[in-house]
Amino acid sequence: MKSMNFHRYRQFPGINLSDRQWPSKTITKAPIWCSVDLRDGNQALRIPMNLEEKLQMFDLLVEVGFKEIEIGFPSAAQVEYDFARVLIEENRIPEDVTVQVLTQAREHLIRKTYDALEGVHKAIVHFYNSTSTLQRDVVFHMNQEQIKQIAVEGAKLVKSLKEEYGNPGIRFEYSPESFTGTELDYALEVCHAVMDVFEPTPDNKLILNLPATVEMSTANLHADQIEWFCRHIRNRESVLISLHTHNDRGTAVAAAELAVMAGADRVEGTLFGNGERTGNMDIVTMSLNLFSQGVDPKLDFSNINRVRDIYEACTRMNVHQRHPYVGELVYTAFSGSHQDAINKGMKAQETREDNFWDVPYLPIDPQDVGRTYQSIIRINSQSGKGGVAYIMEREFGYKLPKAMHPEFGRIIQQITDQTGDELPPHEIWKAFEQEYLNRTYPYHLRECHIQMNASEEGASDTIVKAVVGINGDVVEFEGKGNGPIDAFVKGFNQYSNVHFSLESYSEHDIDHGSDARAAAYINIRKSSGRSAFGVGVDRNINLASIKAILSALNRLEA
Amino acid sequence: MKSMNFHRYRQFPGINLSDRQWPSKTITKAPIWCSVDLRDGNQALRIPMNLEEKLQMFDLLVEVGFKEIEIGFPSAAQVEYDFARVLIEENRIPEDVTVQVLTQAREHLIRKTYDALEGVHKAIVHFYNSTSTLQRDVVFHMNQEQIKQIAVEGAKLVKSLKEEYGNPGIRFEYSPESFTGTELDYALEVCHAVMDVFEPTPDNKLILNLPATVEMSTANLHADQIEWFCRHIRNRESVLISLHTHNDRGTAVAAAELAVMAGADRVEGTLFGNGERTGNMDIVTMSLNLFSQGVDPKLDFSNINRVRDIYEACTRMNVHQRHPYVGELVYTAFSGSHQDAINKGMKAQETREDNFWDVPYLPIDPQDVGRTYQSIIRINSQSGKGGVAYIMEREFGYKLPKAMHPEFGRIIQQITDQTGDELPPHEIWKAFEQEYLNRTYPYHLRECHIQMNASEEGASDTIVKAVVGINGDVVEFEGKGNGPIDAFVKGFNQYSNVHFSLESYSEHDIDHGSDARAAAYINIRKSSGRSAFGVGVDRNINLASIKAILSALNRLEA
Repeated sequence: MKSMNFHRYRQFPGINLSDRQWPSKTITKAPIWCSVDLRDGNQALRIPMNLEEKLQMFDLLVEVGFKEIEIGFPSAAQVEYDFARVLIEENRIPEDVTVQVLTQAREHLIRKTYDALEGVHKAIVHFYNSTSTLQRDVVFHMNQEQIKQIAVEGAKLVKSLKEEYGNPGIRFEYSPESFTGTELDYALEVCHAVMDVFEPTPDNKLILNLPATVEMSTANLHADQIEWFCRHIRNRESVLISLHTHNDRGTAVAAAELAVMAGADRVEGTLFGNGERTGNMDIVTMSLNLFSQGVDPKLDFSNINRVRDIYEACTRMNVHQRHPYVGELVYTAFSGSHQDAINKGMKAQETREDNFWDVPYLPIDPQDVGRTYQSIIRINSQSGKGGVAYIMEREFGYKLPKAMHPEFGRIIQQITDQTGDELPPHEIWKAFEQEYLNRTYPYHLRECHIQMNASEEGASDTIVKAVVGINGDVVEFEGKGNGPIDAFVKGFNQYSNVHFSLESYSEHDIDHGSDARAAAYINIRKSSGRSAFGVGVDRNINLASIKAILSALNRLEA
Repeated sequence: MKSMNFHRYRQFPGINLSDRQWPSKTITKAPIWCSVDLRDGNQALRIPMNLEEKLQMFDLLVEVGFKEIEIGFPSAAQVEYDFARVLIEENRIPEDVTVQVLTQAREHLIRKTYDALEGVHKAIVHFYNSTSTLQRDVVFHMNQEQIKQIAVEGAKLVKSLKEEYGNPGIRFEYSPESFTGTELDYALEVCHAVMDVFEPTPDNKLILNLPATVEMSTANLHADQIEWFCRHIRNRESVLISLHTHNDRGTAVAAAELAVMAGADRVEGTLFGNGERTGNMDIVTMSLNLFSQGVDPKLDFSNINRVRDIYEACTRMNVHQRHPYVGELVYTAFSGSHQDAINKGMKAQETREDNFWDVPYLPIDPQDVGRTYQSIIRINSQSGKGGVAYIMEREFGYKLPKAMHPEFGRIIQQITDQTGDELPPHEIWKAFEQEYLNRTYPYHLRECHIQMNASEEGASDTIVKAVVGINGDVVEFEGKGNGPIDAFVKGFNQYSNVHFSLESYSEHDIDHGSDARAAAYINIRKSSGRSAFGVGVDRNINLASIKAILSALNRLEA
């Protein structure tokens, strides 16, 4: 193995925040969510959304419950400008929703932005400039003072033009872009300078958005930065501290969670983590993480498949099979031991009185996000008998007795070992039908008459007359016993030289109502010692039992 | 918006570890990695790997540098058993690689496991039982003492059978499965009881693997649990604390990172986070996170596309476009401002003497994982002139002068606005060729003779005789000036009534060597005030310049 070129990189410099408080906090309410799907998400698409798709995405975001939605960069392109105008002119923005627009702090761009917002009720004008050490050096060739002046001049411009345009519904957001790559005290200084321009108050807060434009450190260091900032910013009650994490290290959700614990009020992100490169923070995951801890997420993902479908159609991106809470496979267990535990856990859940969700391997109830239990257990060669029994019960209503699980489990295992593939429920049913229900050779029940006699003294007997096809011949016999099974077995044993005894018996209704069918499971053992289960189904439970006996006998002859 | 059913869930109970140390730690070396691709990963596939695919995956894991590889559950299925035998009998396990096998602690299963390991040099026998409150209640219906006895009996069995089989290369790993859902002090008690059986020493360590079988909390609480456990376990130097996180909350990587800071020695995970439900911890991401901080990852992902390709072929899973470090889009910028910063950053990087990587929006050098710079900048309607210029230079070697960027940027923007789609480099080239290089109407250079006269005194003049097709006619003219361009312009202006002046001129070699072609960029302004760039290419720089003039004139006539 050759060693990688790791000497070219440096440890991210953490800050010395030894009295940090965030690790002892928990999140007890949802932050203010701001969707940036239509801006940061859209700009990272191979094929950006067209106007129609943007409208569809906007409607979805509103439906899900976002109260702040960044809709684009109206001064940058005509399509972005037009989108803002359509939203406003067609009254598509609900009263309680604030749209947010991004702009660079240059006069003609700000003017175009205010033109785009003409007539809006509530909007956030979001301006930014990059403050990081690296960008100051290699992109702007400016020192700290010059970069700060860009921010201050920008603030003055957006403020004075707001006054000129006279739109009272406009609030402001400032981002020191690439905040996490900026010296903290300098970022604070820039934000203070911007605050000096806006003079925010608790009733008229300024949003300070602190982007992890590129994720550069472990999640805890991001939280340290945010806590330090929250503790040092002046007039803390007059600003909203906003997060905007990216997923370059695969930890954007954790970074946002820890930073909310560190004091942030607001979180920007996208559905399913769309966005530049590895994507923005995934708001679906973070909000459902809160949900799974008993916190109201303030967003509605109770039909997560619908959200995913619209998202995929609008963005042409796909949601991965293992994406938390929504991926095709995330509520599925293939492994035998997991299936067994889920099976037992689901049964316990049904009887749990307090309704709290607690099932092994399922962090939330799939039904709470509109998923079904149908695919919780899926069968392949790694699966076990418990999973197969679960499918038979959940999908088809057959409650196989526990002692029968290994027998049918082996039958299914043989198939999956052979095909190597997943075995869908209908194939499991097919195997069950072939193995147990459809066997007619050598024994086949053609007719059966059951007569039960009860005397006044409580004694009773049953006479069964049966017409059975055997190897193509038709024979008739009669038996008498204390019940139909007993009578049938006695008659059969008298007639034939096949001797067997009953090991176990169970039955249940498959359907409901007066027309319900019953399934009977009978385990018989021949005098040779070999034993097998048989299954019979009939509207008459007695006939079902007799069919089950023949099913078992046929299997033993096979 | 309807509110979700959040009342059914409870906050994960954190522990009161107010003197936690991990938030002040950094990771300075890679943990011991253990791949569980062939077990946890494999069992979660719709179509589990067949023998051939398992061998391919095993070889890949060895090649990447894993020294511990869990190869399966040999007592659970024939295919798993056969795989172990093939690895051992065909000598496919390198000297320095330890294979790990999972087993339940029951005698016949342990015997089958040892049979499967016959002849192995180094192996870890990994046994487990679930200890969580929930599984004790709903799956096993056992109390703490009974569950502990399962672990102790299992430990005794695997130990005594090892002695019976006499294989000295075997070490042990014990997992209190669903550790994070287990009362911490009880998990400790169980592990102490298991240690009492094995009596591990610093030279013969026991691996205690503490699975987050289902991710149940924010990453910091997982780290708290691990730190507490590391601080309370007896004979800390005689055990290796191992992590095994899952991604149900999308924070498996963060959970493992913080828990390594909290004291863990070893990390189990899979390539690209394959595994049950949302997957196991992604070792590719975590190890490259270390790499990006200047820490030797002890794994080699310098050809990450190859690793991805083999992974996708063996597992039939796909790696998402935004997957950190490897996804198709993760080294790509579509947005204009990002492209501009990357463009400048890449230029600065070329001249950086210490070779440290520091480019905006690119956390690592794509070449360090075998990716190219080719797709760093991709063009769609969100892109800007800087990105287009970058493509022209990086892909085709044309260094468009800065003043020309807006002009060609607008041409490309018109196309992307119209198609809505990404414009791949060859389409950008086609647009460039059509717009600048292939125009022959109305002016077309048919012949050109340049004569330069230098006198002894240093004075010099140039005479250009040109044959030019104009609107289909052929005209000939001659001009004299202080250089070829000057002479051509004078001759042209004398001949025709088109009057123009030169605004700017630049040129560069496109290819290298004596046969190199040159590109010339000329901006001309007509007396009407309209101006345009023209581009000419020729092995002779003087002819390139003259072609550039005609290119500009043709564009102004169009």
